[in-house]
Amino acid sequence: MDLAPSPLARPFPEMPAIAGVTLRAARARYKDWERADLTYVELAEGTAVAGVFTQSLCASSEVEMGREQVQAGRARALVVNAGNANAFTGYRGREAVEAIMAQAAERIGCAPTEVFVSSTGVIGVPLPKDKARDGVAAAFAAEEVSWEDAARAIWTTDTFPKGAHASAMLGSTRVDLCGIIKGSGMIAPDMATMLGYIFTDAVVAPAFLQELLDAANAQTFSCITVDGDTSTSDTVLVFATGQSDAPAITDWNSPGADAFAAALTDICRQLAHLVVRDGEGASKFLQIRVSGATSDDSARKVGLAIANSPLVKTAIAGEDANWGRVVMAIGKAGEPADRDRLGIAFGGVWAARAGMPVEDYDEGPVAEHLKGEDIDLAVEMGLGEGHATVWTCDLTHGYISINADYRS
Amino acid sequence: MDLAPSPLARPFPEMPAIAGVTLRAARARYKDWERADLTYVELAEGTAVAGVFTQSLCASSEVEMGREQVQAGRARALVVNAGNANAFTGYRGREAVEAIMAQAAERIGCAPTEVFVSSTGVIGVPLPKDKARDGVAAAFAAEEVSWEDAARAIWTTDTFPKGAHASAMLGSTRVDLCGIIKGSGMIAPDMATMLGYIFTDAVVAPAFLQELLDAANAQTFSCITVDGDTSTSDTVLVFATGQSDAPAITDWNSPGADAFAAALTDICRQLAHLVVRDGEGASKFLQIRVSGATSDDSARKVGLAIANSPLVKTAIAGEDANWGRVVMAIGKAGEPADRDRLGIAFGGVWAARAGMPVEDYDEGPVAEHLKGEDIDLAVEMGLGEGHATVWTCDLTHGYISINADYRS
Repeated sequence: MDLAPSPLARPFPEMPAIAGVTLRAARARYKDWERADLTYVELAEGTAVAGVFTQSLCASSEVEMGREQVQAGRARALVVNAGNANAFTGYRGREAVEAIMAQAAERIGCAPTEVFVSSTGVIGVPLPKDKARDGVAAAFAAEEVSWEDAARAIWTTDTFPKGAHASAMLGSTRVDLCGIIKGSGMIAPDMATMLGYIFTDAVVAPAFLQELLDAANAQTFSCITVDGDTSTSDTVLVFATGQSDAPAITDWNSPGADAFAAALTDICRQLAHLVVRDGEGASKFLQIRVSGATSDDSARKVGLAIANSPLVKTAIAGEDANWGRVVMAIGKAGEPADRDRLGIAFGGVWAARAGMPVEDYDEGPVAEHLKGEDIDLAVEMGLGEGHATVWTCDLTHGYISINADYRS
Repeated sequence: MDLAPSPLARPFPEMPAIAGVTLRAARARYKDWERADLTYVELAEGTAVAGVFTQSLCASSEVEMGREQVQAGRARALVVNAGNANAFTGYRGREAVEAIMAQAAERIGCAPTEVFVSSTGVIGVPLPKDKARDGVAAAFAAEEVSWEDAARAIWTTDTFPKGAHASAMLGSTRVDLCGIIKGSGMIAPDMATMLGYIFTDAVVAPAFLQELLDAANAQTFSCITVDGDTSTSDTVLVFATGQSDAPAITDWNSPGADAFAAALTDICRQLAHLVVRDGEGASKFLQIRVSGATSDDSARKVGLAIANSPLVKTAIAGEDANWGRVVMAIGKAGEPADRDRLGIAFGGVWAARAGMPVEDYDEGPVAEHLKGEDIDLAVEMGLGEGHATVWTCDLTHGYISINADYRS
């Protein structure tokens, strides 16, 4: 089915080219459709790579292999298949991935382990090797495509193409970061997005790139949820081509390391928000700020318990400032909580403080806030200094329609 | 709003009187409605009590006090308020409960701590003491009511009254167990039901009654989920009036202890299933049998991860044998799993075995099975001997309508 763009969609931004990155796309025809469904990205020699992957214990071959490949820290190519997740396909699935890696490695003259493969779509059908082979060959010969075209080639059930840009000054030299992402359901920590790729011309040591990505992921992709479900294929990879003249970043003492880390977190947050904004059936974007928890991690868990509560999500859809459901969700989080210290605010207006409804609580401005698209919910635990922000969308009839009324 | 009875509803069963139990109901008018909303149960002297309560860390005063009261093991009365959960109401909520306890204790001539109070309904509004006082007084003077009337007096958003009966032979004497329960949303382990009460004429030592209830709860109420949300008020109490001539049950060596334990588990399972059958918007009852896990507890966690997955629940609603979503849910459970050993069957037909789709899988009988009301999903983990069965319902437009389209 083709869905109308999410009401929370954002226009695709202007994004510069990244030196050392060429984007190509082709039709492998993994499904019976007329669209590019195989994306091939060639990367300059010396490109560093870091990655974070789904924590699913039933991950796809692509994820299992990707986890190993990032250890070496080097990449020369990325192939993304759309329409077939190649998950739960046993040894046949793994063979299909190895064939793609060998094919790209031969063309480039690199080690097969420097070729990263991702697949997204139907589970349980081995990726057809012949279609993959022909698709990869067609991509080698294809014209270069834009960031937006690439964002469309990697998507499946997304309703709008998702891209983001950030930059950082390293000394007097600017480096750029461009990212594309896809995913609209089965989004939950940890990991959040199905497939996201970030490219930068910065020169970054692989181990430090991984450290920065882990830190950015913890505050961004690991803080979003659409339905609490976790894909078998979730992957975010960062590629640093090193084609910039900026000084190399090898650790926190490198000039501009802070600026680069901030830019990486920024682009990860932008991409994570776009995934939530395309949450299946989403009509509202919900930010949940938890403070006063016993630790940041505890705050994040409380936030996610709220964000994953169907009763909270349906209340937001119904524009109902139902803080009782928020109390319920906090109570089930399993984290330290004291009922008599809790405070809850919608749009900056406290509905409850210190475990009691606020006496002169005025629901008027809250009702107005809840009619909007971007909803802010604040929770004060009153226990400590831990804080976190998580993001989710509401739960609507649209989610049911997409996931129950149509066969996947 | 008044909802039509759930399509999964069951008729209210024949249930005998239990010696030592008198049921009365009155109108406290906690809400602006014409119905009995205060239930008063008087229990014979010497009644033993055991209880299990929500694990919510933001539990109501009733739950906090109930947890303490069951320690002493003795009960003389139960008061259930419907329409106001008295949760998140601070010291004023606690005072309201203490007033009810004192009022009933004075009438009966017992300790206030032998009076158990439950409240269900809106969160955040202290239970009005005057209404409670007048309601309790009216209940003292009211006629006795039937099990079915009591089941209706304790309910809030339920669409059908829920009761169950079981019996056990202790030597040559039969003891009966009768239970009523309410709850249709915010149902999840642990605890599962909002409010459930079981009464028996058996003579049971309180400590052993608690042991038996804990064991029964682990296989029944803790194995159901509607939406993964956990109420601040969930309570199940068992009262043994000791009015039967049957031999006393004090431990596993007592004659008939096994039979009584089986009957208690039976009635708990019946009541738990009724709650799922009234799950908000439910159109199908889903049984998930997990085998081959590393432990029973691990099997239960895997089962609940499947049962709480919105993508699995919407697939069942859509009559879609989408075993890929089941794999996804298993992967996110965080329990030991080996993708290449998994087997998944719907209605006894294996769709996947040993990590691969079954070659000659015939979707015909599976599609037929999924059209029914009672759906069976089996998962073989292939790792050990651990097994568990959990129950849930599907996720439909009805759930969204109930929770988003109307103000609570």
